[in-house]
Amino acid sequence: MMQHDKRGLRRWLPILDWGRRYDAGTLGDDLLAALIVTLMLIPQALAYAMLAGLPPVVGLYASLLPLLLYTLLGSSSSLSVGPMAVVSLMTAAALGRVAEQGFTDPITAALGLALLSGSILLVMGLCRLGFLVNFLSRPVMTGFVSASGILIAGSQLRHLLGIDLTGATLPALLKQLPAALGGFSPATLAIGGGSLLLLWSVRRWGGRGLQRCGISPRPAAMLTRLAPIVIIALAAVIAGSAGWLGNRVAVIGEVPAGLPPLTLPQWQPELWQSLLWPAVLISIVGYVESVSVAQALAVRRGERLDPDQELIGLGGANIAASLTGGMPITGGFSRSVVNFDAGARTPAAGAFTALGILLVMLLFSPLLRELPMASLAATIVVAVLSLVDLPAFARVWRYSRGEGAAMLVTLLTTLLLGVEIGILVGVAMSLALHLYGTSRPHSAEVGRIPGTEHFRNIHRHAVETDSHVAILRVDESLYFANVRYLEDLVTTVIHRDPPPRDLVLTCQAVNVIDATALENLETLNQRLKEGGIGLHLAEVKGPVMDRLSGTELLASLNGRVFLSTFEAWHCLHGQAPTPLTHPDIATSSE
Amino acid sequence: MMQHDKRGLRRWLPILDWGRRYDAGTLGDDLLAALIVTLMLIPQALAYAMLAGLPPVVGLYASLLPLLLYTLLGSSSSLSVGPMAVVSLMTAAALGRVAEQGFTDPITAALGLALLSGSILLVMGLCRLGFLVNFLSRPVMTGFVSASGILIAGSQLRHLLGIDLTGATLPALLKQLPAALGGFSPATLAIGGGSLLLLWSVRRWGGRGLQRCGISPRPAAMLTRLAPIVIIALAAVIAGSAGWLGNRVAVIGEVPAGLPPLTLPQWQPELWQSLLWPAVLISIVGYVESVSVAQALAVRRGERLDPDQELIGLGGANIAASLTGGMPITGGFSRSVVNFDAGARTPAAGAFTALGILLVMLLFSPLLRELPMASLAATIVVAVLSLVDLPAFARVWRYSRGEGAAMLVTLLTTLLLGVEIGILVGVAMSLALHLYGTSRPHSAEVGRIPGTEHFRNIHRHAVETDSHVAILRVDESLYFANVRYLEDLVTTVIHRDPPPRDLVLTCQAVNVIDATALENLETLNQRLKEGGIGLHLAEVKGPVMDRLSGTELLASLNGRVFLSTFEAWHCLHGQAPTPLTHPDIATSSE
Repeated sequence: MMQHDKRGLRRWLPILDWGRRYDAGTLGDDLLAALIVTLMLIPQALAYAMLAGLPPVVGLYASLLPLLLYTLLGSSSSLSVGPMAVVSLMTAAALGRVAEQGFTDPITAALGLALLSGSILLVMGLCRLGFLVNFLSRPVMTGFVSASGILIAGSQLRHLLGIDLTGATLPALLKQLPAALGGFSPATLAIGGGSLLLLWSVRRWGGRGLQRCGISPRPAAMLTRLAPIVIIALAAVIAGSAGWLGNRVAVIGEVPAGLPPLTLPQWQPELWQSLLWPAVLISIVGYVESVSVAQALAVRRGERLDPDQELIGLGGANIAASLTGGMPITGGFSRSVVNFDAGARTPAAGAFTALGILLVMLLFSPLLRELPMASLAATIVVAVLSLVDLPAFARVWRYSRGEGAAMLVTLLTTLLLGVEIGILVGVAMSLALHLYGTSRPHSAEVGRIPGTEHFRNIHRHAVETDSHVAILRVDESLYFANVRYLEDLVTTVIHRDPPPRDLVLTCQAVNVIDATALENLETLNQRLKEGGIGLHLAEVKGPVMDRLSGTELLASLNGRVFLSTFEAWHCLHGQAPTPLTHPDIATSSE
Repeated sequence: MMQHDKRGLRRWLPILDWGRRYDAGTLGDDLLAALIVTLMLIPQALAYAMLAGLPPVVGLYASLLPLLLYTLLGSSSSLSVGPMAVVSLMTAAALGRVAEQGFTDPITAALGLALLSGSILLVMGLCRLGFLVNFLSRPVMTGFVSASGILIAGSQLRHLLGIDLTGATLPALLKQLPAALGGFSPATLAIGGGSLLLLWSVRRWGGRGLQRCGISPRPAAMLTRLAPIVIIALAAVIAGSAGWLGNRVAVIGEVPAGLPPLTLPQWQPELWQSLLWPAVLISIVGYVESVSVAQALAVRRGERLDPDQELIGLGGANIAASLTGGMPITGGFSRSVVNFDAGARTPAAGAFTALGILLVMLLFSPLLRELPMASLAATIVVAVLSLVDLPAFARVWRYSRGEGAAMLVTLLTTLLLGVEIGILVGVAMSLALHLYGTSRPHSAEVGRIPGTEHFRNIHRHAVETDSHVAILRVDESLYFANVRYLEDLVTTVIHRDPPPRDLVLTCQAVNVIDATALENLETLNQRLKEGGIGLHLAEVKGPVMDRLSGTELLASLNGRVFLSTFEAWHCLHGQAPTPLTHPDIATSSE
């Protein structure tokens, strides 16, 4: 599948495809979606920049040119690119670490991070390495994102209470909390707590309330998504009329009007070296989050998403962010769903969103400066609490103890030791679990269900067996991780008393035999030949057989290759007990 | 399989098992093997210590107590533990790196490395984590070992020519070579070159020559293994009578007589931190090498090797090395094969070898000091050239382009960037290749071979199909790495014109459905239900079905679970085109 049958420029620029079919109807849909997403993105962009430890305007800068780049290069018609919670938290962690090393200019560091992260994504896309992000299983990702949600909410206490609290891990936050609480600001708490309560109420009951007023479910859901900007504005008005703004309640402060600055990257090898590892992790996490939502939405429309093109689109967007005063970005879950529900039909909706942001910056930047930080923090808290998916832990645990444990370990490691170690531990656990499973695969000795051509586990079914013919079925591809298991299995069978005369490996679940396993089978064949035991293969799949032909294994096989297990049984059962010495290889197909 | 049915101490101390059956016949066999291995080990131990950049006697110390520990804890009856070429090269690289950081005492660093490496192995063994070393595929290991052989041979030019040449990579060696060659010593070249020529000739023609003298093949092969000690002694006599020893031809120098020193480890957190990563890599490589040869030999005797017990045995042996002035060790390939061929029947042969080494140290240490380094280097070069397996590259490349490329990349990375980066790149490539393969599995839409119950690929066979019923077979376990592939596959099929009424996933090659894939199937089921398309499963294996029961997927499946593909076909083919809405789940077994 996954054929890339587009040629030349159209392969790299999806806009040349959808652009040709663009018409007025599509334009209307895209414009409406862009309007709604713009209103949703403004508070998010400001708040996530704050979360990353950057001036709020950086979030707006990261929502301009990058969106245009994604429109040119991206393949998802629904993805809304821009600052995103988890990636911003990881950015904060990276900036904190390089600050300890003496790079105290967070803006330069954020630009470097976006540049590196974008370059990594772009190179991976050009090399078609999208499959590499499959290193992350969903339970591990859920564990990581849940922990990130908790850490983000914890970090916002600072703005909600007007206290001095920083820390990249739960222990660090908890340790500072008692001392920090001493200096809390009642006015800030009133504004922040009030915003939180309102946002939460709208999220909980807003949709249903609007439906009762006769608005149909989908627009109702979309309107509740606009609550943050309304509530923040309300909070600003209330705090302003109480005379708190700028003194008792912190505000965003100066938001420069106009176009973003051009920030050409400077060659800073030491800084970049420190940022390389965080950039790799940010790329992986950002891409996995982004491609998951894009894929889910594409599937709902019956569209096909090209994961490698997504790497190019996000890579280009991040590089654009680094050139125009931005920060690392990716596709956001909630905004993309809104974008989809609002009817966005092409990536052009993203470009219109960027135009919307630009208009707001040109016309309303004096208003933005009066927004209270506490209300922005409240929008973050409400948004990220939906990232914390506790029922998933019970569900996964019930289904698979191993995967449940991996999920929990990822959650705890992220909370206790920070995002970077957390995601690494998660990746390692995903891989280790998979290898553990395939290195000790399920296997069975099978016998014939009397009167049929079916063969089943001799321990589960009443089957016909032959002490001279042992038929083994290994339910896994044969590859480097499980060759020792196979050796052990065969050794057990051939050291029976009496030993079998023939051993049949039935391969219907063997999808690959890699070079390690091939070498192993050759050794096994040699040993069985010395012991006078025939080695036969049955039900070898077409692609596996294609590769086996021409190998030493088939040339010297001390037995035959049968099309089906039944054929092997039919041929070997009840034979005189003399070992086969001249291999006679039938060919199999598919 | 792989059951650990032994209880209590016997589980952890294999000696309690084989020790009870020990008799005079076994003793005789073990003593003979020990004698031959001792004579082989003496030059190897001295030479590999030199290779690691340590005083030669360290190699002998590492061949005493560690062998006793392995006798107590190890499970292989044939493995010969002690200093080994590749591990010594990796030790040299690690010592070189910490020397750059200011830890200029190589002996202390080697002890720390053995302690860390032993502890890692021991902990892995106690936690039964032997499967983790499956991260290394055989082609990658062959690439790494071949490169190590070349690097080792290159490093010995120093002793063979009496020049000043050091370097951990091929470029480093080549860069120094021209300048170093200026100071070469003709006497050293005569001794080194002469030894090399003799050793090579014996290796090449010795066995055949002895056979012509009427000695049967096996003892002849064993006698040629003793050539190194004879040739080194000869070289010492010749160089001594020419008056070269100690001035024009470098000798080993003082070898302290008597027992090894007790070297209790001191708490050196900074040194240990620098050594931790090299220790991990040395543990993995040493263990993989060791367990491969032990497994191959165990299989030839029909014995079973416990990989986790091997971790404990090697871990104990390395810790013992760190306590008695030694260096990192592991099971050696050539010595183990000789040990096996010479008739070693139990791990006691290792203890007798240690006794042999001790006797030599007590009685002959004044003789050892006169051995010329150039001859020892010649034995290393001849030994490691057999590690370089160039035909394997062609063989693997023919079988699998991907694995061949991984092998070559590992070889080149190791040669150009050193052993540590080389092995890491190798591990990463093993994993990436495996994931790449399973993330884009083979899949087929199948149809019925007319008149049979067999279903085959519609593109390879003339089969009966039904435009209302699409039957998909994915030849891979469904897990996090390939869920997107499955989504894509199904999307393609259901967007046909006309779309199918029923979709059957036939699962005979699906050995596992992990939590990520389960979630995905649930989403898929939901989507198909909305589209009025039935989703059915067929040939679900017992273990997979056991885990699926009780999940949301089965509870809300928009179709049925069929025992066989034929049953699904029989039931769905020719049905009235109305979508199933009430799931009716039959149970499947294995």
